[in-house]
Amino acid sequence: MGTKKQQTRGLFITLEGVEGSGKSTQIRHLAKVLIHAGYRVLQTREPGGTSTAEAIRRILLTASSHERVTPQAEALLILAARCQHVTHVIRPALEYSTVVLCDRFSDSTFAYQGFGRDLDLKWLQAANTVATDGLTPHLTLVLDLPVSVGLARRRADRGQQNRLDRETERFHRKVRRGFLALAAKEPHRITIVNANRPAREVRDELTEIVVGWVARHHHRPRRTR
Amino acid sequence: MGTKKQQTRGLFITLEGVEGSGKSTQIRHLAKVLIHAGYRVLQTREPGGTSTAEAIRRILLTASSHERVTPQAEALLILAARCQHVTHVIRPALEYSTVVLCDRFSDSTFAYQGFGRDLDLKWLQAANTVATDGLTPHLTLVLDLPVSVGLARRRADRGQQNRLDRETERFHRKVRRGFLALAAKEPHRITIVNANRPAREVRDELTEIVVGWVARHHHRPRRTR
Repeated sequence: MGTKKQQTRGLFITLEGVEGSGKSTQIRHLAKVLIHAGYRVLQTREPGGTSTAEAIRRILLTASSHERVTPQAEALLILAARCQHVTHVIRPALEYSTVVLCDRFSDSTFAYQGFGRDLDLKWLQAANTVATDGLTPHLTLVLDLPVSVGLARRRADRGQQNRLDRETERFHRKVRRGFLALAAKEPHRITIVNANRPAREVRDELTEIVVGWVARHHHRPRRTR
Repeated sequence: MGTKKQQTRGLFITLEGVEGSGKSTQIRHLAKVLIHAGYRVLQTREPGGTSTAEAIRRILLTASSHERVTPQAEALLILAARCQHVTHVIRPALEYSTVVLCDRFSDSTFAYQGFGRDLDLKWLQAANTVATDGLTPHLTLVLDLPVSVGLARRRADRGQQNRLDRETERFHRKVRRGFLALAAKEPHRITIVNANRPAREVRDELTEIVVGWVARHHHRPRRTR
């Protein structure tokens, strides 16, 4: 777990998964529980997390229908935003013993741009290593559920629809297979959680996994009160 | 010259050089002369050239002083903008037999981000190949002059100052050496033009080089009138 550059005192946890897997709701709950347990917690998301990265996010989400953002440009923009996020937000927090909870990170790039849009995975990984300066999450949770279920959840909640929700179901199936392939390759870092259940059950399992893992891995389990 | 992907009918000419080398003035003149000679001409610039690329340019130029854009993120943003520019503007124009005149392109990335900011040149070139899908200029003109002269010209013209003008002179010297190194490696594609002379002399030499070169290489020298 981690690379030679990860001489940090905090813990870096990422939540991943296809659309409609409930990441955003679950990450808010995890943050609350960890804060309550006395940890210093930072909850953040990608693409975004700094003012430059949010400006890049707006380009990605609002690109005009007249000018399609190419898969390559999309990947490069996401990596540029990640570089700002890692440099200015995530690394400083980790150096300050924070538990960083991030909604999407490198694995989403590999699943969406690599598996989903067929960009070369080796090239993406090399570019990602440059963008993150080698920072890898310590723990990654993939909220997994059938694509049809996730998309139906998103459709039921129109306000939440974004550009990715309008992709074909075939695209999202490739992305899901991507997450499962990534998890199979790095079982020590990536844990798959079945998200095709009531949110409360998912929440209980996630909480148990994360709270236990943080207690075992954080160098200073609780903040002095 | 060119790669296997360059099955185009147009010609792709780029102007490069350090700040204050007079590229913008010269490119306007070249466009005028070529149009007058009957060619279909597109004059464009980087970073920019499409609405998404211009939005990326604004991020690069206006990044807040509170959030430094890292050299890696800067390179990734420039490459993302280039990908949009090549896909939506340059390639379609080339397929339509246009002479494309571009103010800065890949060589600026290698000189500024590679030589100037010390990013790994091999990685930059690989990422650039993905962003351009292998498109290389057919002819590149580097307007060369001592850094101190170029910066003095820019300072005399305050309205023209941008973020790069505020870099140290040492940085610009590394960039100039970069352009010269690139030209030494690809003498058939890259021609160095001495820009440390009155603009009219530079203009005459550039016009002679470009008009002669286009006449020899364009498949259809003049537009039917």
